[in-house]
Amino acid sequence: MNAPVNMDELEVGFDVPALPGMDEADIQTPCLILDLDALERNIRKMGDYAKAHGMRHRAHGKMHKSVDVLKLQEKLGGAIGVCCQKVSEAEVFARGGIKDILVSNQVRDPAKIDRLARMPKLGAKIIVCVDDLANVADLSAGAKKHGTTLECFVEIDCGAGRCGVKTTEEVVEIAKAIDAAEGLKFSGIQAYQGAMQHIDGFDDRKAKLDAAIAQVKDAVDGLKAAGLEPELVSGGGTGSYYFESNSGVYNELQCGSYAFMDADYGRILDEDGNRIDKGEWENALFILTSVMSHAKSDKAICDAGLKAQSVDSGLPFIYGREDVKYIKCSDEHGVIDDPDGVLKVNEKLRLVPGHCDPTCNVHDWYVGVRNGKVETVWPVSARGKAY
Amino acid sequence: MNAPVNMDELEVGFDVPALPGMDEADIQTPCLILDLDALERNIRKMGDYAKAHGMRHRAHGKMHKSVDVLKLQEKLGGAIGVCCQKVSEAEVFARGGIKDILVSNQVRDPAKIDRLARMPKLGAKIIVCVDDLANVADLSAGAKKHGTTLECFVEIDCGAGRCGVKTTEEVVEIAKAIDAAEGLKFSGIQAYQGAMQHIDGFDDRKAKLDAAIAQVKDAVDGLKAAGLEPELVSGGGTGSYYFESNSGVYNELQCGSYAFMDADYGRILDEDGNRIDKGEWENALFILTSVMSHAKSDKAICDAGLKAQSVDSGLPFIYGREDVKYIKCSDEHGVIDDPDGVLKVNEKLRLVPGHCDPTCNVHDWYVGVRNGKVETVWPVSARGKAY
Repeated sequence: MNAPVNMDELEVGFDVPALPGMDEADIQTPCLILDLDALERNIRKMGDYAKAHGMRHRAHGKMHKSVDVLKLQEKLGGAIGVCCQKVSEAEVFARGGIKDILVSNQVRDPAKIDRLARMPKLGAKIIVCVDDLANVADLSAGAKKHGTTLECFVEIDCGAGRCGVKTTEEVVEIAKAIDAAEGLKFSGIQAYQGAMQHIDGFDDRKAKLDAAIAQVKDAVDGLKAAGLEPELVSGGGTGSYYFESNSGVYNELQCGSYAFMDADYGRILDEDGNRIDKGEWENALFILTSVMSHAKSDKAICDAGLKAQSVDSGLPFIYGREDVKYIKCSDEHGVIDDPDGVLKVNEKLRLVPGHCDPTCNVHDWYVGVRNGKVETVWPVSARGKAY
Repeated sequence: MNAPVNMDELEVGFDVPALPGMDEADIQTPCLILDLDALERNIRKMGDYAKAHGMRHRAHGKMHKSVDVLKLQEKLGGAIGVCCQKVSEAEVFARGGIKDILVSNQVRDPAKIDRLARMPKLGAKIIVCVDDLANVADLSAGAKKHGTTLECFVEIDCGAGRCGVKTTEEVVEIAKAIDAAEGLKFSGIQAYQGAMQHIDGFDDRKAKLDAAIAQVKDAVDGLKAAGLEPELVSGGGTGSYYFESNSGVYNELQCGSYAFMDADYGRILDEDGNRIDKGEWENALFILTSVMSHAKSDKAICDAGLKAQSVDSGLPFIYGREDVKYIKCSDEHGVIDDPDGVLKVNEKLRLVPGHCDPTCNVHDWYVGVRNGKVETVWPVSARGKAY
C-alpha cells in the first residue's frame, strides 16, 4: 500500500488530478495545487531565519504529510528532520528515508508501542513524547524487545491544553524514570504552545508565549539541578517561532504551516500590524476549484465543498479576487456570491483553505505548478495515517 | 489504483485498522466502525418503507462512498441503484458492478463529460443532472462521440440553494432541448430540498417540503402539458422521505444518512417530538477512539481529532455515556471532559460524528463489527474521489 507509485498507470480525473507536463488549465478539480515558487521561497526563508538564530528546524510533517515536501524542507531549508503526530505517519517518513523523526505526541497503545520500538531498525532516530510515568516501563519494554533505543522528550503543557504535564516536579520525575530505563534515552523537552498560535495580535501572542517560556525555563532549571540537562528544547509554530528563537531556552523549532499558509494563519498580525500572509509568508497552497453551475445570476456554484477541505477554522477565501466571495460550503458544493455575474461556468478559481492541515488530509495529491505548467505531482504520502 | 485489495498484504496499524476475525478490543484507533446489526436493521427498515409506499429507493452513495455498503442496500433494502455527486464516484460504483447510477449533480468540464459519456460502456445506466441549456449540446456531443446514451434529469432548485433552475418555464425549456438532442434521453426531475433536512422541528420541515412539492408539481404539470411527462421524480433525504413518499409527485427517494446516522441528523425530531436516533434510526457508524493521555485529572485526551472527522456540523458525542463529554477538537486530539476522572488510558470510546458524509471521506476503511468480533473490513472505495 506504500509502494512507489507508477505514474504511467494513473488515469487523470480518476486516480489523479493531473500529470507532470500538463497545462495548468487542464488540471481536474477540485484538487490541491502548490505554487512551487512561493513554496520554495517560504521554505528558504524559514531555513535562513533558523540558521541566523542558531536554531534547529524540525519541520512539522503532520501539516503536509508529504515525504516530498519534507525532503524539500531538508534540501532548501536546512530542516534537520521531521516531527509528526502519529506512529503511522512516522512510519511513512521513516520508509521515505527521513533519518530524524519525533513523534510529538504520546504513544500508549501496546501495538503502537511495538511498531514505534522497531522503527529505529529502518535507520531513523526515533523520539517520542511522554507525560505519564506509567508509559515509561511500556516504552522501555518495547525497545528492549526489539534491541533498539527510543529517545524520549517529556512533554510540558505550556498552553495547548492537551497532553503534557504542568509542573517542573512532574517533568523531573518523568525524566529521571526515562533516564533510568533500559532502552530509553532522555533527550529533551516538548513544549508547544498551540492555543496562542492563532491569536491575531502580536502583543497578545507574545504575552502568552512569555508565560510559556517562563514555565519551560523553570523546568529546564529543575532538570539541570537534577543532573539531567535536556539536549533539546523543542516547540514553536508559525505564529510564535521568533519568540522561541529569542528565548534563550528553546533550541529547536517545529513550524509547519509557514510553508503552505492558510486563511486562519494569514489573518494573524506581525509586529507592525500587518497580516502575515502579506509579506512574512506567501500563500503557496490552494484548492483549485471550477464553477459548475450559474443557474442563478448572482450566485456561482463551485465544485469544492466539505470533501475538498476542512472548515473548522472558517471558510476559504478566493485568492486575488475582491469581486466574488465564497460564502457557503456543503458536502460537494461551494456557493460563491457573484453580485455582478462575472464568473463563467468552468472558470477556475484558487481557494485559500481556512486550515491547511486537515484540508491536506482529505486529498491524495499535491499538484505542483510553475509558469502555468504542472511540474510535479506528489502523493500526500501519509494521508489518512491516523493510527 | 482501484484494483482489488489483497488483505494478506495489509499491515494492521499501518495500512488498515483491523482485519476480519480480530477481537474488537484489538482494533487500532482512530477508525470508523460499523455496528453491522444496526446497519442491517436501518437498511431493511428504509427498504420496507419505500416498498410499502410504492417508491423506488436510489441509495445515496456520496454518504458512504462504499461499493460494499451499496450492495448491502441493494440486497437487504431493495435499492434500485445509486446516486452520487461526482463523475469519479460514479466510476467507482460502475467498476464495482452497480448498474443504475445517477450523478445527482452538474457535469460541465469537457474532460469530465467525456468520462461520463463513456461510462455506459461499463454496463451501467448513467443519468446526469442539467440546469443550463448550454450544457445540453456538450453532453450530446460526448454521448455521440462514444456511441452511448446519457439519461438526463432537469434539476430544480426547490430549496437547497445550490444548482438547479427555479421556474417551470426553465424546466420545460431544458427538457425540450434534452429530448431533441442526439444521444440524450430526458428521463426525469432531480429535486432535493437539502436545506430543510436538518431543521429540528417536524412541522417546520413539513412546511418547507410542502412548498418544494408544490414547486415540483407545477414543473411536472408543465412538462406533461408539453408532452414530456417525466418517468422519474427523484429526491428526498433522511429528514424528509415521508413527505416525498406521500406527495403523489415524487416516485424515487435518495436517502443516504439513515443507514449510518450522525449527531446532526440524530437531533432532528419526528412527528411525535422524539429524536430520530431514538427509535426511527439507530447509530450504526462510530469513530472508535482511545484515551491516550490523562495527565490532567479532569480531562482525558483521545486520539480522534480533525483528521478523523469533520466538525462542520458540530462536535461528536460519546455514545452511551453521560458521565464524560467530548468538548474540543484539534488536529489529532479530542479533549474529553472527565470531571470524575473515570476514564483510563487506552480505554476505547465510540464517538458519533457530527456529520457522517465528510467524516467517512477522511477514512480509508470501515471496520464492520458484530458480537465483539471484526467481521468485515471494507474499503471506503470512493474516498477522495472528488473530481
